[in-house]
Amino acid sequence: MASSLAVVVLAAGAGTRMKSAKPKVLHPLAGWPMLRHVMENVAALRPARVVGVVAPGAKDVVAAFAPHKTVVQKKPLGTGHAARAAMPMLKGHKGPVLVIFGDAPLVKSETIKRLVAECARARAAVGVLGFKSADPTPYGRLIVRDGVLERIVESRDAQGAERAIDYCNSGVMCLDGALAGELLAGIGNDNVKKEFYLVDAVAVARAAGHHAIAVEGPEAEFQGINSRAELAAAERALQQRLRAAAMDAGVTMTDPDTVWLAADTNFAPDVTIGPNVRFGPGVTVGANVDIRGFCDIEGARIGRDAIIGPFARIRPGSLVGEDVHIGNFVELKATVMGKGAKANHLAYLGDATVGAASNIGAGTIAVNYDGYGKWRTEIGADSFVGSNSSLIAPVRIGRGSNVTAGSVITSDVPANAVAFGRARQETKKGRAPALRAKLKARALKHKRGKK
Amino acid sequence: MASSLAVVVLAAGAGTRMKSAKPKVLHPLAGWPMLRHVMENVAALRPARVVGVVAPGAKDVVAAFAPHKTVVQKKPLGTGHAARAAMPMLKGHKGPVLVIFGDAPLVKSETIKRLVAECARARAAVGVLGFKSADPTPYGRLIVRDGVLERIVESRDAQGAERAIDYCNSGVMCLDGALAGELLAGIGNDNVKKEFYLVDAVAVARAAGHHAIAVEGPEAEFQGINSRAELAAAERALQQRLRAAAMDAGVTMTDPDTVWLAADTNFAPDVTIGPNVRFGPGVTVGANVDIRGFCDIEGARIGRDAIIGPFARIRPGSLVGEDVHIGNFVELKATVMGKGAKANHLAYLGDATVGAASNIGAGTIAVNYDGYGKWRTEIGADSFVGSNSSLIAPVRIGRGSNVTAGSVITSDVPANAVAFGRARQETKKGRAPALRAKLKARALKHKRGKK
Amino acid sequence: MASSLAVVVLAAGAGTRMKSAKPKVLHPLAGWPMLRHVMENVAALRPARVVGVVAPGAKDVVAAFAPHKTVVQKKPLGTGHAARAAMPMLKGHKGPVLVIFGDAPLVKSETIKRLVAECARARAAVGVLGFKSADPTPYGRLIVRDGVLERIVESRDAQGAERAIDYCNSGVMCLDGALAGELLAGIGNDNVKKEFYLVDAVAVARAAGHHAIAVEGPEAEFQGINSRAELAAAERALQQRLRAAAMDAGVTMTDPDTVWLAADTNFAPDVTIGPNVRFGPGVTVGANVDIRGFCDIEGARIGRDAIIGPFARIRPGSLVGEDVHIGNFVELKATVMGKGAKANHLAYLGDATVGAASNIGAGTIAVNYDGYGKWRTEIGADSFVGSNSSLIAPVRIGRGSNVTAGSVITSDVPANAVAFGRARQETKKGRAPALRAKLKARALKHKRGKK
Repeated sequence: MASSLAVVVLAAGAGTRMKSAKPKVLHPLAGWPMLRHVMENVAALRPARVVGVVAPGAKDVVAAFAPHKTVVQKKPLGTGHAARAAMPMLKGHKGPVLVIFGDAPLVKSETIKRLVAECARARAAVGVLGFKSADPTPYGRLIVRDGVLERIVESRDAQGAERAIDYCNSGVMCLDGALAGELLAGIGNDNVKKEFYLVDAVAVARAAGHHAIAVEGPEAEFQGINSRAELAAAERALQQRLRAAAMDAGVTMTDPDTVWLAADTNFAPDVTIGPNVRFGPGVTVGANVDIRGFCDIEGARIGRDAIIGPFARIRPGSLVGEDVHIGNFVELKATVMGKGAKANHLAYLGDATVGAASNIGAGTIAVNYDGYGKWRTEIGADSFVGSNSSLIAPVRIGRGSNVTAGSVITSDVPANAVAFGRARQETKKGRAPALRAKLKARALKHKRGKK
Repeated sequence: MASSLAVVVLAAGAGTRMKSAKPKVLHPLAGWPMLRHVMENVAALRPARVVGVVAPGAKDVVAAFAPHKTVVQKKPLGTGHAARAAMPMLKGHKGPVLVIFGDAPLVKSETIKRLVAECARARAAVGVLGFKSADPTPYGRLIVRDGVLERIVESRDAQGAERAIDYCNSGVMCLDGALAGELLAGIGNDNVKKEFYLVDAVAVARAAGHHAIAVEGPEAEFQGINSRAELAAAERALQQRLRAAAMDAGVTMTDPDTVWLAADTNFAPDVTIGPNVRFGPGVTVGANVDIRGFCDIEGARIGRDAIIGPFARIRPGSLVGEDVHIGNFVELKATVMGKGAKANHLAYLGDATVGAASNIGAGTIAVNYDGYGKWRTEIGADSFVGSNSSLIAPVRIGRGSNVTAGSVITSDVPANAVAFGRARQETKKGRAPALRAKLKARALKHKRGKK
Repeated sequence: MASSLAVVVLAAGAGTRMKSAKPKVLHPLAGWPMLRHVMENVAALRPARVVGVVAPGAKDVVAAFAPHKTVVQKKPLGTGHAARAAMPMLKGHKGPVLVIFGDAPLVKSETIKRLVAECARARAAVGVLGFKSADPTPYGRLIVRDGVLERIVESRDAQGAERAIDYCNSGVMCLDGALAGELLAGIGNDNVKKEFYLVDAVAVARAAGHHAIAVEGPEAEFQGINSRAELAAAERALQQRLRAAAMDAGVTMTDPDTVWLAADTNFAPDVTIGPNVRFGPGVTVGANVDIRGFCDIEGARIGRDAIIGPFARIRPGSLVGEDVHIGNFVELKATVMGKGAKANHLAYLGDATVGAASNIGAGTIAVNYDGYGKWRTEIGADSFVGSNSSLIAPVRIGRGSNVTAGSVITSDVPANAVAFGRARQETKKGRAPALRAKLKARALKHKRGKK
């Protein structure tokens, strides 16, 4: 059931320090755009409404907010201005209004929930998430007395004893919905940059005699992401969370620091993961699966007891059945491997279905592309496809059939048939020395020609 | 020569926090089951007897203890109970009895040796290994006065000044063999869990007027392994030891943190290892070998001056000769490469022997499996196997012979012969536009059909 | 314009702790020999002359100094003796003389510049670079009073209050050119090892009434490199510099700790790099390129909007055009890929030219080597090379042509032609069970034969 909460997500910032043509909130973290993490964290509170605030022309950001509505902040006049831009979308809303930033993917749902709950409990007009920092210098400081957030001193304005205060402003704020419009409207721009700062909502509230509070969260959740280096730091933080959760659930990782997970990677117990494995989004791994080193897996379901890698690549749309083996230098793309099927060495299976217990030889290519269309290869159960075969899709290889090594298969093979598509071997006795002499002479001539 | 030492290895713990169907002591570390590290560390003391204590039905653990005997602890009634279960196996034993845990793979032989030696020197009835910890809270504290280990205070019982004591109990214990039975029998279970704790042997000994001592070891050797995260931490600790030893011996690693060694990996000097190389157990590497990034090597011997990788996989049973080159996306399995032989690109050589100075072309597959048996390919010295060839084992390619590219070789090729197994090229001038038009139309039709 | 600076680079040390047949200063760091880093850092000062001091017989080191001259230090009699050996090469030189070590690759140009500038400003006969260390024990201490470097106390000679001094000697020194010969000649060898220490130039200068100064630099620039472990630490330090610079310039790295750069890797903005990518020397990457995990790239230019990997290897001499896709298990060697060309799966393209918009099928091999010579494959634009094809170089595949899958192409293919080189498929209905029975029987017989 949806709560009475409205959420405003500010995503109109320029992110110039990223030096990127891509909007900052769309840069990826753990396989998702940054903004999606914020949206998922917020979704856990089951808000009644979510409104995104975007910069003019930011179509990709608008799309990332869907199905939620967005409002355009026409000029970049500060965070208070941005939040105020969302107010018309919240007409009639009575409950609390959470204002959070689209570049704050590390703030956990639990922390946001505590803020909202504490604001309700304390009947505060405004509440902010704060954190204790060993190095508070760059942050605004929260001045709290007797449980009241009296004011927020901007970093540059901190004087004397205030500079020693280590309780810092995260920027995440919860406003009483009945007062939100009034508080945001009360923010002025009497400062050097002539911008409207969201943080000033606290001063507005206090000046009007309203209650304000601060709620503490862990500093680690409030790392700023303004450069590629900070993006990498956030990625590391997220990865550490994901790895710890996977290990808690019974996954062994030889070296957790070299396993890259997506936010939605899903493991059954007793999965083993070697060093250097990357999971893109959309992967589910069954019990007792052994994923060896140097694998890249995305958008795939791996059945229990399967053995993957080393050096395997499994691409989106693949379903790897129970007890399947996918070995080194093998690529699957949108391919279904039936129970117990094997492709152990150097193969490309694109748009293929391989029946249970079938064996795909080394060097086999399921040729899915002809320059114009993509076609499927269907291989029945209990088949044996010899090494270095090329299966020219669309083609069906029947159940229990045998394709001999080195064959090019262009027509369907019925069940239990043997298919060849290769030349008979010819052996010319004693000819190699002459061939070598010819090749040697050619190389020599070429070398001379170059001089 | 064996010493007079008996060793009891406790390996009956459940390890529930691992969330695994596999017994904790069999989880792998640096390529070996955890227990094997303990066994090897203990073996360096040349004990007269080793007895394992296992849980009921733990067949795999019993097998891991072989050739040493095991005894079953019938009920999980605590470590003291477990150690006592081993006593009948030590009948007639007079020397010291070391009790160590199967999940303590980081405790070095030197440290154990010191414990045993100090106990003998001090004529102690019981000695324990202790360690100083910056955060002693979770551990039992060793109360030592004038060289006497007076007692051990369990963590939860520590009071006042005791809580500040940073000398902690590791659990590793050495008992005087003549008293061991008596001391273990004296341990009671008057506690909340109604278990018999090995640590109480100290109290029993002291109460009977015997001498007890503590011997200090480094905290790093006593990390507990109770979860997958702690398993990963232990793996990291072992890897750091192994990497440091390899570098000391003259191995260059571009990034040591991304080289995963096995406990038995063996290097000659001047080996160079790029980033991301995994060594499974049983690898020996000769002098001046260059192992480039992204390789996976297990159960293989690499001869001097060889160049391996990047992206090479060498599987058990392979012997890579002097000056051999194994390049990218090449897999060797149980394959012998003679001196100076080369397989530089995309190849699978399974169950093959390649003679000295032979060249294996890109895309070559030694087809070792026919669905039922595994067969060998034998290639003589000075041969040239053309690209994309399939060698259907069992088959012999004679010395100095030449297999042309794209051939399927099913019959033996004599020495110095040239073997073909491919169709002659046919070229249809001007046909491509029509073919393209046909393929395009087919793709279009298919697309429409889908709608 | 060259400055009036002369530089003496000491590179005659034995480096025994490296346990290597290779001279220490030639061990690689970030893709360059260690010495090259020093030479590049020094070159930024545009010195009038550079002289290397080398050990007898160190041909490779002499070569690494080219085009600069070297002088041989005939006997290893210490750093002062080594520096003095260079003096004859500096006859007539009036400006400052910088003495730096060939194993000091981390000392930045800016730091050296500051030393030289401060020496000039202070009219010092000698100046040394120093650094503050939290653990100064192993270093000589700089005794500075009122801006004068009074003396340097060797670590082992430090007494009382001197031991607490944390200002340490880096060994890098700048001498007044007019006095350099005299100062170096004044150094004695009245010490245990009977060696001439460069550091004593300070004492000589002070005794003669000259001015001496110390200039502070960051400790991180003065890490010693005497073992493989210290080499790895220096590599890590360099990599962190290079990664930070790349991120500042607009490169995203999923996990910067697993991207290995060369000193000269060059990125346009908005490049994305997945985990585990190694760049050898000589790589330039265009804007918006997406390099996925597990790639190895060296000596190549990657055009804008290209997609590389995962698991791609690009070797020296390759030019990857704009919008090209190079996929998994693909190797390029000295290969040119025209705009929009694709080689997405398991292929080796050696010495090839691929025209714009052409598609190279999975498993294709450009067969460049015949055992004697290396030959080129030229593929025109808009061509389609079918999977598992072998193109036997030298060969030309004309523009707009189509090579069918599984073909071996030995003769040139004209533009717009279709080329085949494969056998027609034959299908033997119902034959597979008999074939399977035969293979099964063979395997069984073989197994029995082994017993």
